[in-house]
Amino acid sequence: MLIIGEKINASRKPVAKALEQRDAAFLTELAKQQVEAGADYIDLNVATGSGSAEDEVLTMEWAVETLQASLDAPLSLDSSNPKVIEAGLRKHKNGVPMINSVSAEPEKMETLLPLAKEFDALIVALAMGKEGIPADDEGRVGACRQIHTQAQALGIPAEKLYYDPLVLSIATDTRQGELTLKTISRIKAELPGAMTTMGLSNVSFGLPERSLLNRVFLAMAITAGLDSMIADPTDRELMQTLAAAEALIGRDPYCKNYIKAYRKSRK
Amino acid sequence: MLIIGEKINASRKPVAKALEQRDAAFLTELAKQQVEAGADYIDLNVATGSGSAEDEVLTMEWAVETLQASLDAPLSLDSSNPKVIEAGLRKHKNGVPMINSVSAEPEKMETLLPLAKEFDALIVALAMGKEGIPADDEGRVGACRQIHTQAQALGIPAEKLYYDPLVLSIATDTRQGELTLKTISRIKAELPGAMTTMGLSNVSFGLPERSLLNRVFLAMAITAGLDSMIADPTDRELMQTLAAAEALIGRDPYCKNYIKAYRKSRK
Repeated sequence: MLIIGEKINASRKPVAKALEQRDAAFLTELAKQQVEAGADYIDLNVATGSGSAEDEVLTMEWAVETLQASLDAPLSLDSSNPKVIEAGLRKHKNGVPMINSVSAEPEKMETLLPLAKEFDALIVALAMGKEGIPADDEGRVGACRQIHTQAQALGIPAEKLYYDPLVLSIATDTRQGELTLKTISRIKAELPGAMTTMGLSNVSFGLPERSLLNRVFLAMAITAGLDSMIADPTDRELMQTLAAAEALIGRDPYCKNYIKAYRKSRK
Repeated sequence: MLIIGEKINASRKPVAKALEQRDAAFLTELAKQQVEAGADYIDLNVATGSGSAEDEVLTMEWAVETLQASLDAPLSLDSSNPKVIEAGLRKHKNGVPMINSVSAEPEKMETLLPLAKEFDALIVALAMGKEGIPADDEGRVGACRQIHTQAQALGIPAEKLYYDPLVLSIATDTRQGELTLKTISRIKAELPGAMTTMGLSNVSFGLPERSLLNRVFLAMAITAGLDSMIADPTDRELMQTLAAAEALIGRDPYCKNYIKAYRKSRK
């Protein structure tokens, strides 16, 4: 399971403040905590909402350089603006960068897929096109198939793409959980070599005891074929559930990681 | 989800003692606790290990009559001896009885399926034949298919049969979890109308933090198509996981049961 640590996101107020004040210590600590807790990638979303697109470019450049000064983990460059992602890619030195995200909107594919090719990057690919998030699995898998085809045409290996089925809350529509699981299964079955990822927490929006729902949904999504998650790796119960699910699905020889996680949790 | 409460099992010492001493109060209390916690069926295994087959028949008759005297819930008659099951069926009055269990061994099918037909009973059907538990999903689904075919021939509706894939511990063989999930999916896909059930706890035998593994495996098995579980409904965390998983798979309109379970847990 490829774990993308979600905590450096400018939609969170302390993060926005740290970005605006160029607080390198705060940012680095938040990244280190996530790496120590098991993150393979650190997601970096610097869209504070104040400032121009050019400001976001400068902030991304600063944040990438700052984190790389004291961290070995590669970064997931998270922006709705391809120019911000490109700026991050040009500063990125810690291994294989990740682009978060491309959708099936033509202008996104036309700018971001060639960048992914140039920088040999991993890609989070959203199951949506220019009409927004499709209502059914057919539409969502269709959007993924468009990205898959375009990436193939550019010679990007299928395994570089992590498709995100885009889960919505079950509080407003009870079918959304099942729809997401079905979309994951279909991506794995219909797009050879494709990987899957997901931001878990949307599924529980508006309901009580959200962390329980998120944990249970992680186990269900792994059963359906989830390869990666965008999540908070410092959530201990979530990580214990992950260790259990990986042991149960046969990805943990001799249950070694599970037993290690158990011992760690007792300390 | 059909919940079969597992706690009245003579392999547990206090239960064996209560059965030997004909302690009606103890037995009734154990059944009531499970019903209050959400059990749809109360499993009744009276094989204390001491005494003859005839003793087991007498104990089953006593236990069925005792429980029915103060309980409305139907019973799952659990024995490796068809005569004990038949004795229980003849005393059973609380709705639809359950036979636990039939396997694909010819002598089991020949005696128990006609009884199931006669008493209109539900049946727990084990994914094994006379050679024991098959090593792969092909063998396990094959055993289920044999039972399915025999039941069809007797005119027993497919929905009466709850197939148990027979999970073994992942501690000794890491592939057992995945094998079980695959067996469940295949039963649902290949035997039209068939239901599935499972005793969860075997999966974690020999590992630490067993209840976590059992909970996570429940969520995974529901994703694969599990319709019923043989479990301890007084395990609060297990039941919370069940409520979350049912909401997430779209079986809980407006998440009503989930929210109810949450409120109950806060009391």
